[in-house]
Amino acid sequence: MSDAGSMRPDAIAPLETAADVLAACDTLAAISRSDSGIDRRYLTPEHAAANATTAGWLKAAGLQSWQDGAGNLWGRWCPETLSSEREVPRLVIGSHLDSVPDAGRYDGILGVLLGVAALTHFRQRAEESGGSRLPFALEVVGFGDEEGTRFGATLLGSHAIAGRWQPGWEIVEDEDGISLGDALERFGLSGQTAARASLQENPPLGYLEVHIEQGPVLEAENLALGTVTGIAGARRFAVNFVGQAGHAGTTPMALRQDALCAAAEWTLAVEALACDVQAGRRADMADHSLVATVGCCELRPGAVNVIPGGAALSLDIRALDDAQRDRALDELLNEAHRIAARRGLTFHCEQTHAADAVACDEGLMQAVDAGIAVTGQAPFRLPSGAGHDAMAVSHLCPVGMLFLRCERGISHHPLEAVTEDDVAKALAALIASIEAVATRYV
Amino acid sequence: MSDAGSMRPDAIAPLETAADVLAACDTLAAISRSDSGIDRRYLTPEHAAANATTAGWLKAAGLQSWQDGAGNLWGRWCPETLSSEREVPRLVIGSHLDSVPDAGRYDGILGVLLGVAALTHFRQRAEESGGSRLPFALEVVGFGDEEGTRFGATLLGSHAIAGRWQPGWEIVEDEDGISLGDALERFGLSGQTAARASLQENPPLGYLEVHIEQGPVLEAENLALGTVTGIAGARRFAVNFVGQAGHAGTTPMALRQDALCAAAEWTLAVEALACDVQAGRRADMADHSLVATVGCCELRPGAVNVIPGGAALSLDIRALDDAQRDRALDELLNEAHRIAARRGLTFHCEQTHAADAVACDEGLMQAVDAGIAVTGQAPFRLPSGAGHDAMAVSHLCPVGMLFLRCERGISHHPLEAVTEDDVAKALAALIASIEAVATRYV
Repeated sequence: MSDAGSMRPDAIAPLETAADVLAACDTLAAISRSDSGIDRRYLTPEHAAANATTAGWLKAAGLQSWQDGAGNLWGRWCPETLSSEREVPRLVIGSHLDSVPDAGRYDGILGVLLGVAALTHFRQRAEESGGSRLPFALEVVGFGDEEGTRFGATLLGSHAIAGRWQPGWEIVEDEDGISLGDALERFGLSGQTAARASLQENPPLGYLEVHIEQGPVLEAENLALGTVTGIAGARRFAVNFVGQAGHAGTTPMALRQDALCAAAEWTLAVEALACDVQAGRRADMADHSLVATVGCCELRPGAVNVIPGGAALSLDIRALDDAQRDRALDELLNEAHRIAARRGLTFHCEQTHAADAVACDEGLMQAVDAGIAVTGQAPFRLPSGAGHDAMAVSHLCPVGMLFLRCERGISHHPLEAVTEDDVAKALAALIASIEAVATRYV
Repeated sequence: MSDAGSMRPDAIAPLETAADVLAACDTLAAISRSDSGIDRRYLTPEHAAANATTAGWLKAAGLQSWQDGAGNLWGRWCPETLSSEREVPRLVIGSHLDSVPDAGRYDGILGVLLGVAALTHFRQRAEESGGSRLPFALEVVGFGDEEGTRFGATLLGSHAIAGRWQPGWEIVEDEDGISLGDALERFGLSGQTAARASLQENPPLGYLEVHIEQGPVLEAENLALGTVTGIAGARRFAVNFVGQAGHAGTTPMALRQDALCAAAEWTLAVEALACDVQAGRRADMADHSLVATVGCCELRPGAVNVIPGGAALSLDIRALDDAQRDRALDELLNEAHRIAARRGLTFHCEQTHAADAVACDEGLMQAVDAGIAVTGQAPFRLPSGAGHDAMAVSHLCPVGMLFLRCERGISHHPLEAVTEDDVAKALAALIASIEAVATRYV
């Protein structure tokens, strides 16, 4: 572990308020490989600069800071009542510092900086009152890679701490032909140091992640905060309907094998099933988190005067309950075969991605509920349809997540937006959640 | 008018049988700008070679031949009982000698060569019997451009003889930047000569075109031949549904404005209306020729994990009855607005093409029916959903068309195929149709 900070701690102020946190998001937003937008990738100079800047805020608050063997940035505060050994029980707060290309300024970053602010709070309160009630240490982590922008593989930072680093990943190359192994070396690390970032030998007692919702539910509910129940498992498929191209003018309707019409019928079946499940109209599917999306549709040949002979679609289907998701999927694939057969087409599909759902820990969910309640808002629970570092960390320790509202659900886009009031509530809820964990832990 | 033939007539045999006609199709297929497929475009060396080769078959049969000012190749036989002046009544048989890129060997060409064979038949029979019963001259025309492959504008050859040549067309350029005007000059012609190819001052008594069906109806009916009732009028639109892109994992079904789902619903409405009309389930739409096709579908952004925010479709709608087609179109556009409104999307569309339907002449249809009957097949009538030279010629004189079966309806493709038996029936039917016209004309 190396010292990641080169800034003078006394030159910058610690993160104490929501305004401080938002200003820090703006500071990090300026660290980008691109002049025209935010683009911060794993093991790049921007990664090093983001780590150093974040370490500066930790040090400004008098907190320890280091970078692990996978390039993740850590901070730590330990109550004086506990040993300062690393083996004391600890709760980890975190998210990621990397970004997608042309990103917003809150996805990941806000969760890390709220963690920094929470540690700052506990450190300052300990000084003020001369002690702390927390029976564990607090650590904050800013993962170096969650988005997978540079190497395609996602969650590299959190996989490393969960002991799931795969040496085979090191040959994967970025768009310039630089392998992950070489990129680690250039960053002063290696595949070996990344593997040794594993915390499996001494896991934290839990992991809490604050993140913008990246969806419209909280805004539609007029709520600032929500407790995440779990992260949906996703399966993706490349789907093909194969019919017969033909002349749009000379082929009577009854003699057509129109692949788009078959695809249209199936797209509506996909929508109808997910709507029925979410609306509670399917008694056999109790998990209402199911979403299903046809996002791609490419026609062959795709000409104005030719009946489509082929339609290549994508299917993305997610739910908290893997078994129910798979039953829904079977139903949809059977329906596709029925539609194709009735129309004289063929249907085939291929799975392109599969990830099981991750359930949040009930104890951590109750702590987050309690944290939200402190802000004056009734607790509200919702699933996460998007992936998060907590998915990988769930292989290491229990995980919990706090979502905060973002404007119109927009994310991965420069228009990503939050309000200072919501950020203040998230900080208060995070602090109160940590206290609730302490209450339960004792 | 220049002499188009440079081959020695005595070196080649006249086209007498279906086998001769098919062999001639193979000969023309070898005249291509491309080594790997058939590609014969207007005003090219291949155009000149096709004209010269066809003129050779005409001369081999002792028939007159010339090229007009638009590059169309003509042949003529005049019964001895009539004056040999050009002003005698005449029936024109024809189609086109040009091709799409990577074409089949029968689209257009077969109709021209069956015309050559029919003239050959009448010329030979006249010699054998010492006279002819035909009260008119016969002409055959091979149009230089029907497909529009070189200049985008279609039917240039037939527009010219119909007196519809537009000087404004001469500035249109091919893919090498050569204007139509320059191409005419290089071919020894000009915009003036093309305009003077008009036959409006002395129109033929009628025009008969034999063509492969380019559709699956005759094959499905197990028939070799059909009488064309008219050429459908077509309208085309660029259609847009605009919703809201969103995260496929985080956006609940009830909060989506999925442009593909709206497009799917509308695509099925398009199909359902055309099916209902063709099946006679719409009492208010008596013209059962209506076909409607969504051939293009492009999604924005078109990613597996993003809800489609926009869908750009095409609509192609055709029918023999223009007014009914337009009523069907109104119904479909109203339905699109209803679907969009119900789903919280917007809908807009733009017309990209419009052509009125052309009806075949009832007298010529009856002559073609009679010609088909001579082959032992019951007459069968069907509309043409594809465009043909007869559309342009209809502005000059009454038109009729005889369709022959092609394998699986395939056209504009190297797999285009006909049987020798069907070609023999088509030749017999064409000859008998000409005789039927003579009977009516007397």
